[in-house]
Amino acid sequence: MQHTLIVRLASECLGTLLLLCIVIGSGIMGVNLSQGNDAIALLANTLATVFGLFVLIELFGPVGGAHFNPVVTAGQVLLRHQPARELLPYTAAQLLGAWLGAVLANGMFHLPLLHTALHVRTGVGIWLGEVVATAGLLLVILLGRAERMSALVAAYIGAAYWFTSSTSFANPAAVLGRMFSDSFAGIAPASAPAFVVAEILGGLLVVAVTLVFKRRLTV
Amino acid sequence: MQHTLIVRLASECLGTLLLLCIVIGSGIMGVNLSQGNDAIALLANTLATVFGLFVLIELFGPVGGAHFNPVVTAGQVLLRHQPARELLPYTAAQLLGAWLGAVLANGMFHLPLLHTALHVRTGVGIWLGEVVATAGLLLVILLGRAERMSALVAAYIGAAYWFTSSTSFANPAAVLGRMFSDSFAGIAPASAPAFVVAEILGGLLVVAVTLVFKRRLTV
Amino acid sequence: MQHTLIVRLASECLGTLLLLCIVIGSGIMGVNLSQGNDAIALLANTLATVFGLFVLIELFGPVGGAHFNPVVTAGQVLLRHQPARELLPYTAAQLLGAWLGAVLANGMFHLPLLHTALHVRTGVGIWLGEVVATAGLLLVILLGRAERMSALVAAYIGAAYWFTSSTSFANPAAVLGRMFSDSFAGIAPASAPAFVVAEILGGLLVVAVTLVFKRRLTV
Amino acid sequence: MQHTLIVRLASECLGTLLLLCIVIGSGIMGVNLSQGNDAIALLANTLATVFGLFVLIELFGPVGGAHFNPVVTAGQVLLRHQPARELLPYTAAQLLGAWLGAVLANGMFHLPLLHTALHVRTGVGIWLGEVVATAGLLLVILLGRAERMSALVAAYIGAAYWFTSSTSFANPAAVLGRMFSDSFAGIAPASAPAFVVAEILGGLLVVAVTLVFKRRLTV
Repeated sequence: MQHTLIVRLASECLGTLLLLCIVIGSGIMGVNLSQGNDAIALLANTLATVFGLFVLIELFGPVGGAHFNPVVTAGQVLLRHQPARELLPYTAAQLLGAWLGAVLANGMFHLPLLHTALHVRTGVGIWLGEVVATAGLLLVILLGRAERMSALVAAYIGAAYWFTSSTSFANPAAVLGRMFSDSFAGIAPASAPAFVVAEILGGLLVVAVTLVFKRRLTV
Repeated sequence: MQHTLIVRLASECLGTLLLLCIVIGSGIMGVNLSQGNDAIALLANTLATVFGLFVLIELFGPVGGAHFNPVVTAGQVLLRHQPARELLPYTAAQLLGAWLGAVLANGMFHLPLLHTALHVRTGVGIWLGEVVATAGLLLVILLGRAERMSALVAAYIGAAYWFTSSTSFANPAAVLGRMFSDSFAGIAPASAPAFVVAEILGGLLVVAVTLVFKRRLTV
Repeated sequence: MQHTLIVRLASECLGTLLLLCIVIGSGIMGVNLSQGNDAIALLANTLATVFGLFVLIELFGPVGGAHFNPVVTAGQVLLRHQPARELLPYTAAQLLGAWLGAVLANGMFHLPLLHTALHVRTGVGIWLGEVVATAGLLLVILLGRAERMSALVAAYIGAAYWFTSSTSFANPAAVLGRMFSDSFAGIAPASAPAFVVAEILGGLLVVAVTLVFKRRLTV
Repeated sequence: MQHTLIVRLASECLGTLLLLCIVIGSGIMGVNLSQGNDAIALLANTLATVFGLFVLIELFGPVGGAHFNPVVTAGQVLLRHQPARELLPYTAAQLLGAWLGAVLANGMFHLPLLHTALHVRTGVGIWLGEVVATAGLLLVILLGRAERMSALVAAYIGAAYWFTSSTSFANPAAVLGRMFSDSFAGIAPASAPAFVVAEILGGLLVVAVTLVFKRRLTV
């Protein structure tokens, strides 16, 4: 069953809201409790994200597709799995949800509802990490079995938080949301554009490789 | 097969007993071993709760529904999945089980069997956290696939321990049980009523939204 | 397909050997690396045991049943799922495997192959913990779905390592194996008999309750 | 569907590249954040490897078999599951991928792209650990259910990182890749040959035992 566009946009908005609330909220809780040991805070952040992504994709996948990520939606459009006219409204719903998720996390943890992060994340290695992180995410989505997609994406992000030097944002909506909370998961607005460029490059790389690869597989 | 009410009440009572025993017992063990690093204690508490919830829902779901939670039962009643006359006995079985679970945990760890917690948990952010935690739990139960419900609820609570500022009690029976053990997972009786109010608000919010949402889905 | 008894005994012996090797080996590694923080060592011990049990039950369940535990075999005999004449050879295979697993772990970590543990584990609360741990294990085995048994038993033990005051040996063969390595997972021989008694009590309790419970379910 | 050899080799190369990138990258991140507590670094390394292996086997298993490991391929050849003429190209693809994965991890974390590790890993206990680790891996692959192989191998390696004294390389391609990054997961080139010999011994042991065991099962 295909839902109406407005229901699917609501699904993307609410899902992205909850995703960013999980990412940012667990980052704050992790830092509050871990006495300055960032590895323990990132372990907590990782577990919460893995568990949360699994649940969100299970719940919202059948409704709006559970992209929560403009690069994923763009990839679906480029591969002709989704009409191009939906890219803009999907992206808008995702960005709105991401921002609201940051605001909600700030509210729960007594941070100012509206403020921006100071955490500078920059450098060639980190940008390369973000290319790899997003390329890997697209690879998982395009090659994984639909029946196990919730577990695959969740597990992939759990690994990517640790094996990429950027801790794997891999999502322009996540970049936007994380700009609006000056906490463990945050990113300074000045660092954001390069992250988004790297994510788009990683996504494009895999869309191109996948097209070539799939053509080979049908030989 | 529908079991008799008495069997289902026994299932709810024993399941809630074991759930609270797991939550409180693993909290005590976590603090005993973690040398004051609360993030490590909460990681242990999280893993034990996730593993335990998965098992308990698998075992008791087919018998009594594995609510273990008066807000969940009330939601089922409001959505006409369960007759209203069962709300009171279900709640009583859950509260009795929760209290017995706290007593059993106290007994295993050489704490006085009967005493109350001193841990004050209060503030607007924490109450908001409890609204979010319970709303999320109901969303999972109402939208998730039955076949994966044990994994979905367990994973959700694993995330919510970290991303909500209240560490996600999300359950009036859990509040009651945690009042009776002055340990990591405890809550002072004076903090309990506001938690229960927040949980009821979160539950009502999702029951209402779900009714609207399901109506949209059938358009 | 039912395998011959000798194949099933080999399966029990090798499986129990690997289980004890995992439990003891990961305990040693955890202590070696965790700088005296026992919560981190127990987290590592827990993850290794959960992952390992899942794999061992998957591999050896279809061959010999994957009991790895005389109380489990005794429960199967009492419930008439297995002939009584197999209890003794199963137990012998499990105990032999457990001892060999301890020796192998000692060998890998440069401990004397043959020695006993000094870690005293005693007290009413710990014995109660061991009753609860074993009762819970039997409950899982008797009520859980066969198709998910590997995940259920692994998850249960992962929770029980933390929520029981005894860290959940729940298995006389595990008690025997752990006597033969003076490391994190070890138990002094003088503490062993009371553990075994508590485990037998916990097992008997659930066998009795299950018989009553199943009779109720068929009403 | 059987893919062409060139597609399967590309699958092995890319999969092994990503595996080594995950193993080495998460090791670097773990050490960077864990303030010298190696148990926390190994926990992070373990989770990233478990999550990553699950995903990689899911994605590349249907394409090239997802061996990522010359000992696994050799085992398949010895058991006549794969033609002998494919052993050399498979091994070459795996070794090339492993080396490229190390280079990519170095690049992301601002280490020199081309350098070797200094971490000496030697001793009879560690070699025994490596025999056990590889034997266990082959046992899992040969006895586990195909439908659950991704979870089984991932879980097995997660346990083996902790219960074997060598932290379970269990893969000559992994040994090669880890030689080229002087970080947490690294191994000094001088220590590598003994590891590879131990891995081959462990693999041969299980291939032989499995042949005998399977013959018994068919009686």
